[in-house]
Amino acid sequence: MIIDIHGHFTTAPKALDEFRAAQLRGERSGLAPISDDELRESVANNQLRVMQERGGDVMLLSPKASGMEHHVPDPEIANAWAAVSNSLVHRVSELYPKNFAPVAQLPQTPAGNVAGVLAEIRRTVEDLGFVGVNLNPDPSGTWAGQPLTDPAWFDIYELLEELDVPAMVHVSTACNPNFHTLGAHYLNADTSVFMQLLQSDLFERFPRLRFVIPHGGGAVPYHWGRYRGLAMRYGWPDPSDLLSHVYFDTCVYHQAGIDLLLDVVPSTNILFASEMLGAVRGADPDTGVEWDDTLAYLRGAWLPARDREAVLCENALRVYPRLADRFPRP
Amino acid sequence: MIIDIHGHFTTAPKALDEFRAAQLRGERSGLAPISDDELRESVANNQLRVMQERGGDVMLLSPKASGMEHHVPDPEIANAWAAVSNSLVHRVSELYPKNFAPVAQLPQTPAGNVAGVLAEIRRTVEDLGFVGVNLNPDPSGTWAGQPLTDPAWFDIYELLEELDVPAMVHVSTACNPNFHTLGAHYLNADTSVFMQLLQSDLFERFPRLRFVIPHGGGAVPYHWGRYRGLAMRYGWPDPSDLLSHVYFDTCVYHQAGIDLLLDVVPSTNILFASEMLGAVRGADPDTGVEWDDTLAYLRGAWLPARDREAVLCENALRVYPRLADRFPRP
Repeated sequence: MIIDIHGHFTTAPKALDEFRAAQLRGERSGLAPISDDELRESVANNQLRVMQERGGDVMLLSPKASGMEHHVPDPEIANAWAAVSNSLVHRVSELYPKNFAPVAQLPQTPAGNVAGVLAEIRRTVEDLGFVGVNLNPDPSGTWAGQPLTDPAWFDIYELLEELDVPAMVHVSTACNPNFHTLGAHYLNADTSVFMQLLQSDLFERFPRLRFVIPHGGGAVPYHWGRYRGLAMRYGWPDPSDLLSHVYFDTCVYHQAGIDLLLDVVPSTNILFASEMLGAVRGADPDTGVEWDDTLAYLRGAWLPARDREAVLCENALRVYPRLADRFPRP
Repeated sequence: MIIDIHGHFTTAPKALDEFRAAQLRGERSGLAPISDDELRESVANNQLRVMQERGGDVMLLSPKASGMEHHVPDPEIANAWAAVSNSLVHRVSELYPKNFAPVAQLPQTPAGNVAGVLAEIRRTVEDLGFVGVNLNPDPSGTWAGQPLTDPAWFDIYELLEELDVPAMVHVSTACNPNFHTLGAHYLNADTSVFMQLLQSDLFERFPRLRFVIPHGGGAVPYHWGRYRGLAMRYGWPDPSDLLSHVYFDTCVYHQAGIDLLLDVVPSTNILFASEMLGAVRGADPDTGVEWDDTLAYLRGAWLPARDREAVLCENALRVYPRLADRFPRP
């Protein structure tokens, strides 16, 4: 079984965009009805087809990351938007229970909306069987909030520990013209969060908390020596000590990058992922390989069979216990 | 000849810190006298010794990057601080003309202080023989300003073209608790600026402008496929088209990172650099190699002799013509 832990429902029916547009106009209309057939169509020729053509089996599906737009300050809008978005990925996972497992968007706002976040985590994980959540380390979109190590986040971590679900640390749209959302903001967030964690003792306080850092960890594996050197200079534990709690996905879109990731980070801490249909579409004209076909790069990498199995499947089942409940080992 | 294009005068005599502290207290005292012997001592057992022990010959020396503190808004303070800081790296380069070439700190402020910046570029490059400048893409320290592609920067680019000097794109201290200065802000800036350039036609307007992106280009080489894919998706030129104008240094502190950089970026666009004495100090306990001994990683990398010569020397002389004037080829 090959599990892609990072897919987004970027192909949702138009009714979802219309709901959002109405919300932002201040209207309180509900989501227009979407039939099961329409939902099936929205993934059958997209995420599902591409995954299966490439040889994958299961995808963790969450709402479109750039569409979460946590910078909108109204908690009621955030709650309704997360609920509607999550309802769709949940329905997709019910329509294709062998292929999709849902991951939740949280109704974060720049001021936090912690009560709403906690309620949506309980609703999605406890009631609907979601296997993980996406936690935005920068709900403002301008980095106006506090680092993930600040006590403001602790109530969320307590609940994640209680429910034993990991959080993928994933920002949404950047609200600063210096940062291209897909080409800078996403990667900067990954890098910044790793450094926040390196400076802190967060995992002493929350020993069962687990974070997945997407996009191959931003700049971190490429600069692994810099982090080791900084940790030594400041007297912090070595960055490898974070690896009981921090995992990287494989959303790195060329062979050399995947090779570096596999070289630097232990295979116990790498989770196969494609981010599709996500930031990049199309194929490298030089090789014919689709940019986000990270399974092709993993196949092209030197990797012992046991490590390959860990990256493609076992790590996901270990880091996401509720995924393992859905897909019990034979 | 081996040229390190990225060194900082992080070991300046205490009088410099005292000058700065007095400035920030609102006092207008001058820099206390620093003797030539004191200046020699400040580098003889530091940058100079380390460079020579490792086999290097020449270092481009600029004032301490985190100390530039362009977030302080008063242009007069910025002008005086840049002038005093630059005077010291200039004196070091006069004391050791075979080993150091000066690179200027610019008196940027969050509002720009373009007149002051232009004056300091002319003074340092035209009058004092500086070979390059450090341009901060985020003088506010909070990314409150405009991208480097905004017309607000164009007067500076015109002068850089006129004088034929490159700019290293280098931020200073982060003023946001989400971003550790050395472990996140520096790398994020490198990544963000590359993406700003990828989205723009800046080099059509300024065909002789050249930027050096430090710290191995932040996350860029590790995510080279992502940038190629994004460029294709949005119909922009391939990122390799930027390489007539954009160069990366080798401040990546482990072998795997340097190997990736050399694998992904053409050797014509990589400039040897150590950033020492900079972000990281000390040696990897596993290998005994000092973290910032990037010459050791370059020696450990597979690299044809001609490419090695390019990275270690020839590229620097080409990108920094005023350096070539100081060190004419035999």
